[in-house]
Amino acid sequence: MKSYHIQYGGGLNGLSLKQHPIPKAGAREVLIKMRANSLSYRDVNILAGNYPLPVKPDVIAVSDGAGEVVATGDGVTRARPGDRVAVNMFPLWLDGPFGWDYAPQIGGSLDGLLTEYAVVHEDAIVPIPDHLTYEEAATLPCAALTAWNALTGGKPLRAGETVLTLGSGSVSLFALQFAKLFGARVIATTSDEVKAQRLKALGASEVINYRQTPEFSKAVRELTQGNGVDQVVEVAGSSMEQSILSTRAGGQVNFIGRMGGESKPVNLTTLFMSAAHIRPIAVGNRSQFIAMNNAIAVNKLKPVIDRVFPFAQAKEAFSYLQTGNYFGKIVITHS
Amino acid sequence: MKSYHIQYGGGLNGLSLKQHPIPKAGAREVLIKMRANSLSYRDVNILAGNYPLPVKPDVIAVSDGAGEVVATGDGVTRARPGDRVAVNMFPLWLDGPFGWDYAPQIGGSLDGLLTEYAVVHEDAIVPIPDHLTYEEAATLPCAALTAWNALTGGKPLRAGETVLTLGSGSVSLFALQFAKLFGARVIATTSDEVKAQRLKALGASEVINYRQTPEFSKAVRELTQGNGVDQVVEVAGSSMEQSILSTRAGGQVNFIGRMGGESKPVNLTTLFMSAAHIRPIAVGNRSQFIAMNNAIAVNKLKPVIDRVFPFAQAKEAFSYLQTGNYFGKIVITHS
Amino acid sequence: MKSYHIQYGGGLNGLSLKQHPIPKAGAREVLIKMRANSLSYRDVNILAGNYPLPVKPDVIAVSDGAGEVVATGDGVTRARPGDRVAVNMFPLWLDGPFGWDYAPQIGGSLDGLLTEYAVVHEDAIVPIPDHLTYEEAATLPCAALTAWNALTGGKPLRAGETVLTLGSGSVSLFALQFAKLFGARVIATTSDEVKAQRLKALGASEVINYRQTPEFSKAVRELTQGNGVDQVVEVAGSSMEQSILSTRAGGQVNFIGRMGGESKPVNLTTLFMSAAHIRPIAVGNRSQFIAMNNAIAVNKLKPVIDRVFPFAQAKEAFSYLQTGNYFGKIVITHS
Amino acid sequence: MKSYHIQYGGGLNGLSLKQHPIPKAGAREVLIKMRANSLSYRDVNILAGNYPLPVKPDVIAVSDGAGEVVATGDGVTRARPGDRVAVNMFPLWLDGPFGWDYAPQIGGSLDGLLTEYAVVHEDAIVPIPDHLTYEEAATLPCAALTAWNALTGGKPLRAGETVLTLGSGSVSLFALQFAKLFGARVIATTSDEVKAQRLKALGASEVINYRQTPEFSKAVRELTQGNGVDQVVEVAGSSMEQSILSTRAGGQVNFIGRMGGESKPVNLTTLFMSAAHIRPIAVGNRSQFIAMNNAIAVNKLKPVIDRVFPFAQAKEAFSYLQTGNYFGKIVITHS
Repeated sequence: MKSYHIQYGGGLNGLSLKQHPIPKAGAREVLIKMRANSLSYRDVNILAGNYPLPVKPDVIAVSDGAGEVVATGDGVTRARPGDRVAVNMFPLWLDGPFGWDYAPQIGGSLDGLLTEYAVVHEDAIVPIPDHLTYEEAATLPCAALTAWNALTGGKPLRAGETVLTLGSGSVSLFALQFAKLFGARVIATTSDEVKAQRLKALGASEVINYRQTPEFSKAVRELTQGNGVDQVVEVAGSSMEQSILSTRAGGQVNFIGRMGGESKPVNLTTLFMSAAHIRPIAVGNRSQFIAMNNAIAVNKLKPVIDRVFPFAQAKEAFSYLQTGNYFGKIVITHS
Repeated sequence: MKSYHIQYGGGLNGLSLKQHPIPKAGAREVLIKMRANSLSYRDVNILAGNYPLPVKPDVIAVSDGAGEVVATGDGVTRARPGDRVAVNMFPLWLDGPFGWDYAPQIGGSLDGLLTEYAVVHEDAIVPIPDHLTYEEAATLPCAALTAWNALTGGKPLRAGETVLTLGSGSVSLFALQFAKLFGARVIATTSDEVKAQRLKALGASEVINYRQTPEFSKAVRELTQGNGVDQVVEVAGSSMEQSILSTRAGGQVNFIGRMGGESKPVNLTTLFMSAAHIRPIAVGNRSQFIAMNNAIAVNKLKPVIDRVFPFAQAKEAFSYLQTGNYFGKIVITHS
Repeated sequence: MKSYHIQYGGGLNGLSLKQHPIPKAGAREVLIKMRANSLSYRDVNILAGNYPLPVKPDVIAVSDGAGEVVATGDGVTRARPGDRVAVNMFPLWLDGPFGWDYAPQIGGSLDGLLTEYAVVHEDAIVPIPDHLTYEEAATLPCAALTAWNALTGGKPLRAGETVLTLGSGSVSLFALQFAKLFGARVIATTSDEVKAQRLKALGASEVINYRQTPEFSKAVRELTQGNGVDQVVEVAGSSMEQSILSTRAGGQVNFIGRMGGESKPVNLTTLFMSAAHIRPIAVGNRSQFIAMNNAIAVNKLKPVIDRVFPFAQAKEAFSYLQTGNYFGKIVITHS
Repeated sequence: MKSYHIQYGGGLNGLSLKQHPIPKAGAREVLIKMRANSLSYRDVNILAGNYPLPVKPDVIAVSDGAGEVVATGDGVTRARPGDRVAVNMFPLWLDGPFGWDYAPQIGGSLDGLLTEYAVVHEDAIVPIPDHLTYEEAATLPCAALTAWNALTGGKPLRAGETVLTLGSGSVSLFALQFAKLFGARVIATTSDEVKAQRLKALGASEVINYRQTPEFSKAVRELTQGNGVDQVVEVAGSSMEQSILSTRAGGQVNFIGRMGGESKPVNLTTLFMSAAHIRPIAVGNRSQFIAMNNAIAVNKLKPVIDRVFPFAQAKEAFSYLQTGNYFGKIVITHS
């Protein structure tokens, strides 16, 4: 079998395809035939050598993947051959709040899933919704679960609340889609009129052009009778001050970390006077993944996919990811 | 102006129309020209003399109403003449958990709203959603807020969770509609095939006939892979054991109190082994009412109304309520 | 090495000592030389054959134990030889709410710890506080963690709140001690004047004699200006109605299941009018065990031990447990 | 009767004593004979003209006070003449989260309590614990309630957790005392060895000298096995970065706003990698005040008072406050 390996900081040239024997599932482990993967902005960080967490040397690439269980080791009770599953990025994080004990992550300090076969602990897999293809399910582990954790893991989102999403990165798109599932109102931002239309088609009730309105918090306040929004999914860092200024007293700025932008420091008087809470987010746990999949299944939600590449063209997929010019997930299929 | 008064326990004959001068709004109070009311099962309890809380002698009838602010007293900041408002049943309960300090209630220990004009404290009113008529808004204070509190005031409801509603009383219908707003799945019960169709039209994914399946928890377990539901809105008491048996470990049975049925005692071993939590509900507070109205406004939700009676035919409306044979709220209009 | 096995429902005669080879730690497992155990009421249920969950045939007895790690299997990161540890009763339950996935339990469906050596997964062990002996640490897994979960796992206990504990079983004693750590006031019940003095010495501000005052809720109401307590740790079932009547609106009755008493059914009108929440409790998870041990360590809390038996006299220890006449934990030492 | 008035930004010279008739209690209001006040850092801000919220022209000074109810207006049910009460700084904020609706505050946009008699709404008063003098009770409304809200209003504090307090301002001292009530461990900072001893006497287990160790987060990490603390009560702003670096993943930095220091901007990568939550705090609500007083009463906690001035020497009291060199509250007595 073949796997794509990454040389940390080596850019696209650091990506190489290597041959391995198919691994075996040990006690409480499962062997998965990977069927699809998706790429995340973190993969750009790893290629570029500016990922904030440890990366294993010569790591197998990519955190996100879905596939079919083809064998199970001793003592496995949570899966059977034939099961359609996705893999949780933090395989030790089963439930409860994040802690550094749970830090080992697929496609970072642990081998990733851009490979024909992978072995993971049975606690690391979750069943995927019946109505999703493998390609669609492969979009969920990093971006979707981050968005889900943002909206449900801190202050619980309620119907009628207002969520602000920023731009059209995949976390923002999932946040928009999930917020709509909950009956919330979504205000989105973008700098592109075509994307604005697509954001509206996904359910955004208003879209603010942050190029035309760099102080977009003023527009947000106008759209919310001066109150501000209940939650922001802040994906850039560079917009943190505007995000804080957009949030109501006691509202929550979910902080997803550096998705590429420079993160400007935050003025504390601004923060204090906003009375907004800031909550950093680290993807999510197994229990949240299962809950999210229930939400996706019950509501027959479909992830937004921009483009699908074959496994053989993974380098082209990464290259496309690096352009930053896409709307929806970039997927790699094994079929 | 005229008001309907109730003689506690006097039945329909205890209902009488009396003439009063129009009252004046004192400090921080508002005068409301009532435009519509709705009836609740509690009103049957009061007519029948079996309401569990104190009732003022010769009380003006009915907890639920909506109208137009026509005058404001000194120091009022939350309302202006012309505002379209509903009145919160517990006017002292502004936020946070219920306590007996907050027990005084409209249409019980305090005068109700089946009257042409009413004076209440400005803290007791909430704006009504623009897309609702007065008749529609008048359905909200008791039944809708109870359902909202059930689903959001304890364990927060999330998309993808499953809610069990019982029968087709108004609390159950609102619970069904709200659960759908949140992206939840709803299993409903009824004994009537016509009502089953209406419950499905409102969004129930499955409807169990509790006459044919008195142990409906078995059907619920089958529909939930044996797990049970996340929340039940238990409105009768008589079905409490089945509700407990329908609930997953750590799930929540919201207990709305006696809606008429005999309440059979609960076996504690059943409760313990279910690991379900039981949470009695007492309508809701001002802050919840505002949040609910936001949810209704953002999602353009329409309450289900069975029938509208003119103010002059209030006795007929009560009589119709007593039949128990309706689907949706019974409304009284003043126009 | 030797282990005590239990024949389910076989009473004291079903307890037998058997010889085994010392087991080996597999991947992510540890080998523990057991140093002490404690007995719980559940062990009486298992001897008597009325335990509500599945019990493995010929199971090694006892859920509670502490010992020293003497060997570690491959991939173990959470323990080293020499570590002083206790074992969590639900080894699969690491964090978050209970679910039936987590039901396998030490000394029930899984082998217990009344043995000279035991192998468990590294996730199942927690370090024990430095100031505790093995005998003291062995008291924690079942009774203490149940009490901790009661007071902290649902509504969080705050200084100044009032907790009602019932009788002098070990869960009640730990609940009393923990409630005092949190700066809460404790009202206790007992039928024995000597025990009343010991409960006061542990920090109970008032002790009600439930023999003299069977409707003890009236005494509780008097002691709380009519409000009722914030939390009850209800260990019997037989006193559930009085517990509900003792609880303030929105307060919490933590229901620990059958500790021996007959559990009388609960009247639903009583429950509804109390506005108390009922929350069944199933011991606790790994994360709670660690948090509890921090609380014990920071405050140098000492568990109450009634009597210590040598390993060779385990049968006498069980016999003593069956009398029900003790105050504090019954411990078995291996040294 | 006499009242001290403040000219915003006028410094000590802007403080003047004026004569008024004794006011009358209107509907649902009470007349209080003030018996003691305490000063807060916010009063320095108001004298200096750099308070971040609106201040009424010629406002009666001081947010904090306690006294005796001497008369009650119509409809008052929560107080009787003779009651010993304190006044909540945000009289409209009764329960639930803060919102700008609740912003009017005593001694800011509303008249304060440095006066011989004051009239407030009955919802604005809370009974004071029996074991406290008026001088002691007068210390509670601003500093103590802020500390209480910090520790209990967001993530609930549990026994065994670790709290970091900064310096020896009054919020920090109350936070230390409250954290000890909850069975928590407290690490404190100071730059003064004498104050270090006093902090230890109040219960701090370790005190870090932030002059000698400006990167005090390193010392905090060493004292917490590298984990960081569960909560910080951040009172300065200038130390925010060190506070964030001192906090465990998922822990909480309670941000009390500018207490005088310059607030340096926060680096977002530091914040993200800490995974700490930031929560701005605005004193607290009536319900929290009552809960805090229960905690104080049950545990017979005594506030730390630095010095008591007579009413006639209020100017000297403000002058002493401006030195910043005190340990405990500065109180003004009317007796």
